[in-house]
Amino acid sequence: MPKQKPRNAFYAQSGGVTAVINASAAGVISAAKKHKSKIANVYAGKDGIIGALREELIDVSKESAETLKGLIHTPSGAFGSCRYKLKSIEQNRREYERLIEVFKAHDIGYFFYNGGGDSQDTTHKMSQISKEMGYPLTCIGIPKTVDNDLPFTDNCPGFGSVAKYVAVSILEASLDVASMASSSTKVFILEVMGRHAGWIAAAGGLAAQNKGDAPHIILFPEIPFEEEKFLRKVDECVKKYGFCSIVVSEGVRDQSGKFLSESGLRDAFGHAQLGGVAPVLANLIRDKLKYKYHYAIADYLQRAARHIASQTDVDQAFALGEAAVNLAVKGVTDVMPIIKRVKGAKYRWTIDTAPLAKVANQEKFMPRHFIDKEGFGITKACRDYLFPLIQGEAYPPYQQGLPKYVKLKKTLAKKKCKAFDI
Amino acid sequence: MPKQKPRNAFYAQSGGVTAVINASAAGVISAAKKHKSKIANVYAGKDGIIGALREELIDVSKESAETLKGLIHTPSGAFGSCRYKLKSIEQNRREYERLIEVFKAHDIGYFFYNGGGDSQDTTHKMSQISKEMGYPLTCIGIPKTVDNDLPFTDNCPGFGSVAKYVAVSILEASLDVASMASSSTKVFILEVMGRHAGWIAAAGGLAAQNKGDAPHIILFPEIPFEEEKFLRKVDECVKKYGFCSIVVSEGVRDQSGKFLSESGLRDAFGHAQLGGVAPVLANLIRDKLKYKYHYAIADYLQRAARHIASQTDVDQAFALGEAAVNLAVKGVTDVMPIIKRVKGAKYRWTIDTAPLAKVANQEKFMPRHFIDKEGFGITKACRDYLFPLIQGEAYPPYQQGLPKYVKLKKTLAKKKCKAFDI
Repeated sequence: MPKQKPRNAFYAQSGGVTAVINASAAGVISAAKKHKSKIANVYAGKDGIIGALREELIDVSKESAETLKGLIHTPSGAFGSCRYKLKSIEQNRREYERLIEVFKAHDIGYFFYNGGGDSQDTTHKMSQISKEMGYPLTCIGIPKTVDNDLPFTDNCPGFGSVAKYVAVSILEASLDVASMASSSTKVFILEVMGRHAGWIAAAGGLAAQNKGDAPHIILFPEIPFEEEKFLRKVDECVKKYGFCSIVVSEGVRDQSGKFLSESGLRDAFGHAQLGGVAPVLANLIRDKLKYKYHYAIADYLQRAARHIASQTDVDQAFALGEAAVNLAVKGVTDVMPIIKRVKGAKYRWTIDTAPLAKVANQEKFMPRHFIDKEGFGITKACRDYLFPLIQGEAYPPYQQGLPKYVKLKKTLAKKKCKAFDI
Repeated sequence: MPKQKPRNAFYAQSGGVTAVINASAAGVISAAKKHKSKIANVYAGKDGIIGALREELIDVSKESAETLKGLIHTPSGAFGSCRYKLKSIEQNRREYERLIEVFKAHDIGYFFYNGGGDSQDTTHKMSQISKEMGYPLTCIGIPKTVDNDLPFTDNCPGFGSVAKYVAVSILEASLDVASMASSSTKVFILEVMGRHAGWIAAAGGLAAQNKGDAPHIILFPEIPFEEEKFLRKVDECVKKYGFCSIVVSEGVRDQSGKFLSESGLRDAFGHAQLGGVAPVLANLIRDKLKYKYHYAIADYLQRAARHIASQTDVDQAFALGEAAVNLAVKGVTDVMPIIKRVKGAKYRWTIDTAPLAKVANQEKFMPRHFIDKEGFGITKACRDYLFPLIQGEAYPPYQQGLPKYVKLKKTLAKKKCKAFDI
């Protein structure tokens, strides 16, 4: 059999970025270098898959070794990411064909797509259409989502670091409130991400090491909000502990399924204010219980907080990037490498794979036995699941008192195709 | 001259707590131990000065050496703090007399009060009234405020760590927004503390190392908000850089002097929503510019963030606690130790003192030459002032993936006085 010429790889970041998605990129790039006989060069999509559609391919070989190493400790999507969901092949064949056109022009033989559920779906579709069009393309999805809602994998890269940030933040803020509560703020609310699944909010529960420790209340999207029950619990906590510390998921819904964040605030013109469940709860507490409150909304701070990233998370993100390449060069396609927890008292993990056809468009919610009976806290099973994911402090290097994050040059490969409207 | 018997010291934390106020407490306790011939024991007020009024004195000698050492890396007010301003002596002589009564009963000869401007004022009044009542009491104020608004001292303990948190957070969140802006959020707003002075917001400017770097806009309480000018600038940034990153001080006011945070949002009942200037700006951007936005409100997270505290800040907080004791045992009274910046290219600081009579009730605002001409950024002079204050990462120890913060036993000294209503 004649030896095959090495082909190029395309890597793209997709959807909301995380503190460790660049570590996955570093894993892909580092592993690709070890397989020169199979992978000639890595191109990355500028702003995700949009970069492939527009033929804006960042030539990774033009970046310095130091910059590429620095990806491991740099948050955000260094190559650019996007919110851009490719429609089904039937609805938009044109875009899939364009991708193949661009890939063909740049001899892309490997497609690595780093994202959440939608991205895994796109990767699967690319695998199908390339086969159908007779273009040989190895397609591997690399999991990424702060929401931790992908199926099959024990956990998602990005989540462990958000979890650590949220647990540390509510621990610190609760100490603050506790020390002032006798004469000042009695209720503190931290709003965290999680539109559908309560994993991030659950992580706040790790700060409570002993019974009665803050946070006293966690509100999950999985548990419909009951106003009276909630207010009763807040009041109980203030009376018992002197204060009440709350972590609320942005995705909490009322009994009718409506987002709580959409239930009240209006601007001066009467327009509904978008976003922010914390102020809705705060106003409720003010009106019904008259307690002094404060609230924080972590928003992007939580998913960008590389300064307090989990070492476990960074290691897994890198390992999954490496694994993607190692699978691809072995000829495996249409899969996503996943984290598998090894059974045993001590936490250990290995890498396994899941078929993309099964991963696509499934969301993994908090199982009911991870949430306590009352619905306001996490169980031991949940703590046992979460704790290993926040272990280790992967501090970035600092310069002048600030993290030394890297910035790519983003040198684009010469265009070979016609322009394309997206 | 007969040798004087050692007397006891009273220490209390006051007002909003910080990431490093406990380091000042540790400085006081550690220095007091070195002066056994002068200071017999340290009592701390439970919940600040309220603890003295109620005769709830925490016996510091009952805490373990390990716990006391851990104060250096524990945020919040470990002994409890309070928002409780003593009125003038004329208006409320009863409370001052009560303090003297309690101090007399416990042979308190040294009064250390760790707080902001109001607390320095109280310390000064205690000095006056003890003299007037013929009760020998050495009174030393220890500066503390995240707002950095005390006069005389080059900077205030607590500020350096908030500054570091804000600079790191806006750096990270801006990288996040930058990587998504082509297809998603274009404007990001981080709301930080600073009701009257813009020091904390200014610190966000440290993240911008080169021209055009985020944050692109800083809104200071010192600069009246001009809607049109602001919106024009936001639009310019989005067009020029692809996104606009904003740090806003909670205390920004409109041209008429009204807090912007009070200018718009209503709940479902039409009640004004308290707090939150970020959503007001966000709604403005949505209505007038139609850009997709996100906002974060750091609230207590910023002042409690011991996990990313500035080493300079921790060192200074500890040193000022020590200095307070060293001054007191020398017989100095009615002063506040302060940080003095030594002139020279390399940052160095020493400790000096300021008379409490002059410190009380003065606020230090950002000087105009620290804010650029346009009013949306900081100048080189400001950067030169701020940068040294965020140097060094004073990481706390971790256990199980979380900072190992200490908790005091808070053993109270036996009461000797009658109950007192406050």
